[in-house]
Amino acid sequence: MTRAKSSITGILLTLLISIGLFSCAPETQVPKEPVITMVIHGGAGTITRDKMTPEQEKAHVDKLTEALEAGMAILQNDGSCLDAVEAAIRILEDSPLFNAAKGAVFTAQGKNEHDASIMDGSTHSAGAVASVTTIKNPISAARAVMEHTGHVLLVGRGAEMFAASQGLDIVDPEYFFDQRRWDALLKVKEEEQSSLERPLKSAEKMGTVGALALDRHGNLAAGTSTGGLTNKKHGRVGDSPIIGAGNYANNATCAVSGTGQGEFFMRGLIAYDVSALMEYQKMSVTAAADKVIEKLTAAEGLGGLIALDAAGNVAMPFNTPGMYRGYVKNGGEVHVYLYGDDVE
Amino acid sequence: MTRAKSSITGILLTLLISIGLFSCAPETQVPKEPVITMVIHGGAGTITRDKMTPEQEKAHVDKLTEALEAGMAILQNDGSCLDAVEAAIRILEDSPLFNAAKGAVFTAQGKNEHDASIMDGSTHSAGAVASVTTIKNPISAARAVMEHTGHVLLVGRGAEMFAASQGLDIVDPEYFFDQRRWDALLKVKEEEQSSLERPLKSAEKMGTVGALALDRHGNLAAGTSTGGLTNKKHGRVGDSPIIGAGNYANNATCAVSGTGQGEFFMRGLIAYDVSALMEYQKMSVTAAADKVIEKLTAAEGLGGLIALDAAGNVAMPFNTPGMYRGYVKNGGEVHVYLYGDDVE
Repeated sequence: MTRAKSSITGILLTLLISIGLFSCAPETQVPKEPVITMVIHGGAGTITRDKMTPEQEKAHVDKLTEALEAGMAILQNDGSCLDAVEAAIRILEDSPLFNAAKGAVFTAQGKNEHDASIMDGSTHSAGAVASVTTIKNPISAARAVMEHTGHVLLVGRGAEMFAASQGLDIVDPEYFFDQRRWDALLKVKEEEQSSLERPLKSAEKMGTVGALALDRHGNLAAGTSTGGLTNKKHGRVGDSPIIGAGNYANNATCAVSGTGQGEFFMRGLIAYDVSALMEYQKMSVTAAADKVIEKLTAAEGLGGLIALDAAGNVAMPFNTPGMYRGYVKNGGEVHVYLYGDDVE
Repeated sequence: MTRAKSSITGILLTLLISIGLFSCAPETQVPKEPVITMVIHGGAGTITRDKMTPEQEKAHVDKLTEALEAGMAILQNDGSCLDAVEAAIRILEDSPLFNAAKGAVFTAQGKNEHDASIMDGSTHSAGAVASVTTIKNPISAARAVMEHTGHVLLVGRGAEMFAASQGLDIVDPEYFFDQRRWDALLKVKEEEQSSLERPLKSAEKMGTVGALALDRHGNLAAGTSTGGLTNKKHGRVGDSPIIGAGNYANNATCAVSGTGQGEFFMRGLIAYDVSALMEYQKMSVTAAADKVIEKLTAAEGLGGLIALDAAGNVAMPFNTPGMYRGYVKNGGEVHVYLYGDDVE
């Protein structure tokens, strides 16, 4: 696309989006040529400048950028939003920096149990796995559940057997060992409290990674993957693999991925609630996302979410000191933020 | 209460409910003295007069009546809605007539895997267990998760260990063997199709049991328990233990329990959707429940639900030939229905 054409398209898109917002009807916001968009998060929590070294900061920014660029490359190549979401999340899952797959926290029994889900906004089909211990990339297992079973959620050994039957990478549970996460478990155990039952400590981050994509066909997808809570009970499943709690996508409204105190997201149906407010109260994605985080705050829950509508509008609200987050549109500049006082 | 007093109270309640309905504001429907109410279901599906013997019909009516009366006795004795819901569901779980606990269907591997959840409408706290094989009454384990952990959902072995630590009844998996359910598995296996992937066959019922209660303090609770789908994959979890999908309760709106093709309930957030329509579009519980079943039908999903608001209004819509269902109010006449052409 030439620079002149791109500029005209830009003005046209802005106009169409403005009309959409003005009429407060999310379903009319879809421009003819969708603004291909990637949005990701890498967890919310006590993420503040004084707790991060320049090296840590750079490592997080670089990895989030890599994930956004990988997803965007797929979208620019006319790839599907599902492919873009899966690719972005696999990069975050393979990094020890985030609490998902490779970087997963430990349960009370000293194990790593992973949860993940993915949803297709065009068909409303969804797949998820929970409490799995041997699947290298839980997000890919979630997608296989969606595409190759009549089910939505498989848990535990049944999910692992299914993933193996699909030819997905199976690893020894030791693959997920991370000294930093192990030390975090020992510290929490010393205090004899689960991270849910005590206030957030400094430097504590609630993990979970998520990605949303809007592709050239105007389709939305959402994916979420997590190692859950440090010192969680064996078998505890949080919001990440629960459709409507930690993850949701619907072309008519939005795609959402959450991060935070999962139990609050489950009881509040946080991800679906953003969509319901857009559908039933004709709110914009930004207003709906803000309202849901307000409700979370009122319930004394902590966390954040990313949301994306079919016009490419992005919302990334949270009520914690920081949230690893970022987006990129149409192959343009990559925006990555870590702290609460970052200007988006 | 004397007959005269009861009549005056009845007129007053009708008046208050009418005002509430007229203004379309569910939260104003709460009368000063709540109409203590129990509602239950025992599954939806191909339940028709020609498929039932008089003995089968009587057995189902008797067991549903027993469950309703047990819950109502607790409510009349100033018991909590949570106690009433748990008691009613335990009766259905202990019966081989329904696809929950004792009467659970078999997985593809010839096992019984149970899911259950419970939610407290006054605090929005919730508990659930999924994919458990040794807990005699999964609903009681769900309640223990709600009351004695910081978590909402425990699955598999972790949930079983927790239930044992709480002193709940643990049984050998053989306890759940039922010849009729086993024969059903063999029949489905012969056809080499899971019950999700083929049309409903005659005499097929989608199991699941559920109970809702409104107590004297105006509090709502919802509980749901199931054995899932015949020939389901090992580890498959349906909507019953998923808050917002198969079960939900919120004093400000309603209590809901669903039954049907669980994957549709999970993708559509059926239980929460009834509440969202009441909260965001000010629909009555009846209108909201009907609307949600309309959406289920449009998505080509099968099932039904029971819903109860804080004024004691009951809705029991379904899009299958029949649904085992019933209610009782204020210790009055017990209403039980099985078929689609039963006049409620």
